[in-house]
Amino acid sequence: MQMLSLDLGERSYPIFFGAELLKDKSILAPYLGNEGVLIVTNETVAPLYLQDVRDLLDGHQVDELILPDGERYKTLDTLNLIFNTLLEKGRTRGCMLIALGGGVIGDMTGFAAACYQRGVDFIQIPTTLLAQVDSSVGGKTAVNHRLGKNMIGAFHQPKAVIIDVDTLKTLPDREFRSGLAEVIKYGLIVDKNFFSWLEENIDALLARQNDSLLYAIECSCRLKAQIVSVDEKEGGVRAILNFGHTFGHAIETHQKYGEWLHGEAIAVGMLMAAKMSAKMNWLPAEDVERISRLLKIVGLPVDPPPDLSPQQFLNHMVVDKKARLGIIRLVLLKAIGQAVISADYEPDLLRAIVTPG
Amino acid sequence: MQMLSLDLGERSYPIFFGAELLKDKSILAPYLGNEGVLIVTNETVAPLYLQDVRDLLDGHQVDELILPDGERYKTLDTLNLIFNTLLEKGRTRGCMLIALGGGVIGDMTGFAAACYQRGVDFIQIPTTLLAQVDSSVGGKTAVNHRLGKNMIGAFHQPKAVIIDVDTLKTLPDREFRSGLAEVIKYGLIVDKNFFSWLEENIDALLARQNDSLLYAIECSCRLKAQIVSVDEKEGGVRAILNFGHTFGHAIETHQKYGEWLHGEAIAVGMLMAAKMSAKMNWLPAEDVERISRLLKIVGLPVDPPPDLSPQQFLNHMVVDKKARLGIIRLVLLKAIGQAVISADYEPDLLRAIVTPG
Repeated sequence: MQMLSLDLGERSYPIFFGAELLKDKSILAPYLGNEGVLIVTNETVAPLYLQDVRDLLDGHQVDELILPDGERYKTLDTLNLIFNTLLEKGRTRGCMLIALGGGVIGDMTGFAAACYQRGVDFIQIPTTLLAQVDSSVGGKTAVNHRLGKNMIGAFHQPKAVIIDVDTLKTLPDREFRSGLAEVIKYGLIVDKNFFSWLEENIDALLARQNDSLLYAIECSCRLKAQIVSVDEKEGGVRAILNFGHTFGHAIETHQKYGEWLHGEAIAVGMLMAAKMSAKMNWLPAEDVERISRLLKIVGLPVDPPPDLSPQQFLNHMVVDKKARLGIIRLVLLKAIGQAVISADYEPDLLRAIVTPG
Repeated sequence: MQMLSLDLGERSYPIFFGAELLKDKSILAPYLGNEGVLIVTNETVAPLYLQDVRDLLDGHQVDELILPDGERYKTLDTLNLIFNTLLEKGRTRGCMLIALGGGVIGDMTGFAAACYQRGVDFIQIPTTLLAQVDSSVGGKTAVNHRLGKNMIGAFHQPKAVIIDVDTLKTLPDREFRSGLAEVIKYGLIVDKNFFSWLEENIDALLARQNDSLLYAIECSCRLKAQIVSVDEKEGGVRAILNFGHTFGHAIETHQKYGEWLHGEAIAVGMLMAAKMSAKMNWLPAEDVERISRLLKIVGLPVDPPPDLSPQQFLNHMVVDKKARLGIIRLVLLKAIGQAVISADYEPDLLRAIVTPG
């Protein structure tokens, strides 16, 4: 087992990586009080790992809540199901929530923990690649609103993140590939060597070899932890983690979070941001080609959905949290491994990027 | 105009007191950005003060949301109306919310500000005595759940609190008297001299004389600010602010926040806590009598509703946020002006207190 620390003063916490972690009681034990634990998971993950996690909690008061699976359930209404369970069980401020599942479960459980009695502890046990390399680390929690993704939420750090790479063995192929989009993102925004490593090791990753997976996950979490530790609440540099997301969220909003997976939407978004960076003469055309090639090898889409008009695209982007005063701040690339945040571009350039052709 | 500062490091903020503050543009001006302001108020307060506040915001993009009036609307559903308005107007992270109204409006607007895009600024303009001396100061925000009051919320400090004592002129008598319960609370928990002052000046207060009101409000806010500044998130001493509230919340939960006003419920709760303190030989019987006498002069109830059975009472108290492990921690009095938090009492004693007789 390896351990990485996310350094945030009194809100610091460890991220544990390894295989067979869901069989190791010693990891979770230090975090458990004696005022009850609620495991929040979904109907897909529950049959696979809920019993393992229950076994880790032997001797504690444990409740479980199994939610329907899917981004479309990431709403205030579903959040209320968590509150209902906690209140029906009479859980107090000393209780602990455990998020067992992907990003949707992690975001909702974290937000419920942020709000329940104005804040209780929670632990992330992410079971998808996307959640392991992105959403479980950094304390962003949220639910969606019909007018925008992640519009209602909180910064609330977990007490620990437990990443058991074995859980990826049961992940459907499309979700696994979608998660790789976020892994690729870290190379693109801050680490060109990691990007090169991904190009060279993509076959081993796609074959889900444990060593490659652990290296990719640890690199991703380390890079994210470094960024979050200097800008916990996204006052500045943390926004580069949104590379590809302003475009990607527009796609997801358009589809009401139904059709494409998050990683698929941001794969397209990253390529659009890269193309825009190239049009601004920042990124060489051959680097756009490298990015496009890697995304295609992974099996991710590279073009936006055809039914999303340029004007709709722009409208959805304006609602994104990165927008201010109607000006859309974009995360762009000066080079592979070097992201910048910029609102200093010609509006026509952005319009051209979101126009199919 | 007077000013008091709530000292919380980078989250510090001023509390302004005085008359005719809603006519003074200079107070609000330093807090306004240029990304839009949403005034949240209710149908009772809007006809009285909304135009005044709009006038203060001359030159800014101002939207308003007028909610129905009443504690029973302090729900996640109503909260969502605030999010709808913000998103329909395309408001970004730089927007500002203004809570114009009583505690319900303040708690909901503050919680919406805490969650919208993971946190935006807000200002409290409390228009009830209860909100002026309690809920607008200290950053506690929340909505109710059918199984418990204020169960879903956040700590989110305002950027400023503006207390215009003139707004109390339009406050219905019953609400004004209910607010005095919280004023009396400060004397009981930390300042015996203030309690004596209240006994001596209760007629002037009930006549709503500005000087007396301003003194009582400033004392209350100063005492609250002192407590909050040493324990922002209620890890310890802040819990004494809940004096009378564990009993009071049980009454409110029983009534589904419908019949009694908050101050009425906690008036009864304070007297029950005082009686319990006397049964533990902490508080002299004559002090219980002083408290009872003052509450009666104010016109507040001193007995719980007759339809609330002892077992129901205890059940509702266990769900309260102050409870841990099913043990109900109570705020009790060692003396007038000296509150303590204790779970060290005979359960039978508590049962006797909630049993009519």
